[in-house]
Amino acid sequence: MDFKAFEKLTCGLYIVSTAHEGQKAGCVVNTVTQVTATPAQVMVAIHKDNTTAQVLQQAGVFHVTVLTEEAPLPLIGRFGYRSSKEFDKFAEFETLLDSNGCPYTPVGAAAHFTCKLVQQCDVGTHILFIGAVEDAQLLSEEPPMSYSYYHTVKKGMTPPRASSYQPPEA
Amino acid sequence: MDFKAFEKLTCGLYIVSTAHEGQKAGCVVNTVTQVTATPAQVMVAIHKDNTTAQVLQQAGVFHVTVLTEEAPLPLIGRFGYRSSKEFDKFAEFETLLDSNGCPYTPVGAAAHFTCKLVQQCDVGTHILFIGAVEDAQLLSEEPPMSYSYYHTVKKGMTPPRASSYQPPEA
Repeated sequence: MDFKAFEKLTCGLYIVSTAHEGQKAGCVVNTVTQVTATPAQVMVAIHKDNTTAQVLQQAGVFHVTVLTEEAPLPLIGRFGYRSSKEFDKFAEFETLLDSNGCPYTPVGAAAHFTCKLVQQCDVGTHILFIGAVEDAQLLSEEPPMSYSYYHTVKKGMTPPRASSYQPPEA
Repeated sequence: MDFKAFEKLTCGLYIVSTAHEGQKAGCVVNTVTQVTATPAQVMVAIHKDNTTAQVLQQAGVFHVTVLTEEAPLPLIGRFGYRSSKEFDKFAEFETLLDSNGCPYTPVGAAAHFTCKLVQQCDVGTHILFIGAVEDAQLLSEEPPMSYSYYHTVKKGMTPPRASSYQPPEA
């Protein structure tokens, strides 16, 4: 098995966010995929231990923000490397609410999606959340941040809970 | 709903192939996503009406080939716009068999993955096939074909059964 092969799978970088009874949660993922066109549905894989997965299951709604290549690294650091249990990740950025009450920030965003959770699929360490897209908006014509760009240009790292994490010995 | 927002979801272009009792099948998709790292699992959404989905369900194994930016358009045309029921899509290209007996072509390939089907999730028009990656090989250092590159540089089209198809009036 050559783990370098996995780096040829093309994906982007996103913030998935949600809220339930005052608990806001959000995390960075690279697993958002449109899975059907009619109706429009997206899938996102999130690690079971992430607070975002747990709050999302209670909320039944979520928001997907597509990051641009110019998304500030502190934003990614805040959402990607810390827990929503510890502190309010949204506190330092302009925060809006979608029609379902999910918080999101337009900072560094190319597009965003308002989603209703319609199905879950347990795949082991992660859960696939299937969302019906209730609204979608384009915010910027800037190129979206690809995972490859994040690694090679931005020198970004991959945390252990990411679907594409490779242990150092791999 | 602004359908242009969906174009900001970053994805690649792949051939998914399989075989069961002499029936070879394969199709082009843009929905391959790594969903877990331990163990390594990939997901692919395929339209229920595609012969590939039906043969894959019987075979219980599949192969994923990552296309490079230089993958020949006739290859994509053959696998993307015709049915495996009609004719042998592999006939005109060098064809190898993986350890599960799935056919694949190394032509225009950046990497490839030998997968065992471990789970399915019905999401309406499409099925999410979850595969445990049994083997992965890097074939080329050429950049993988992103869906955006396929559209903007290669002027590729999206067929109606694709997860990201947008009706002309959208």
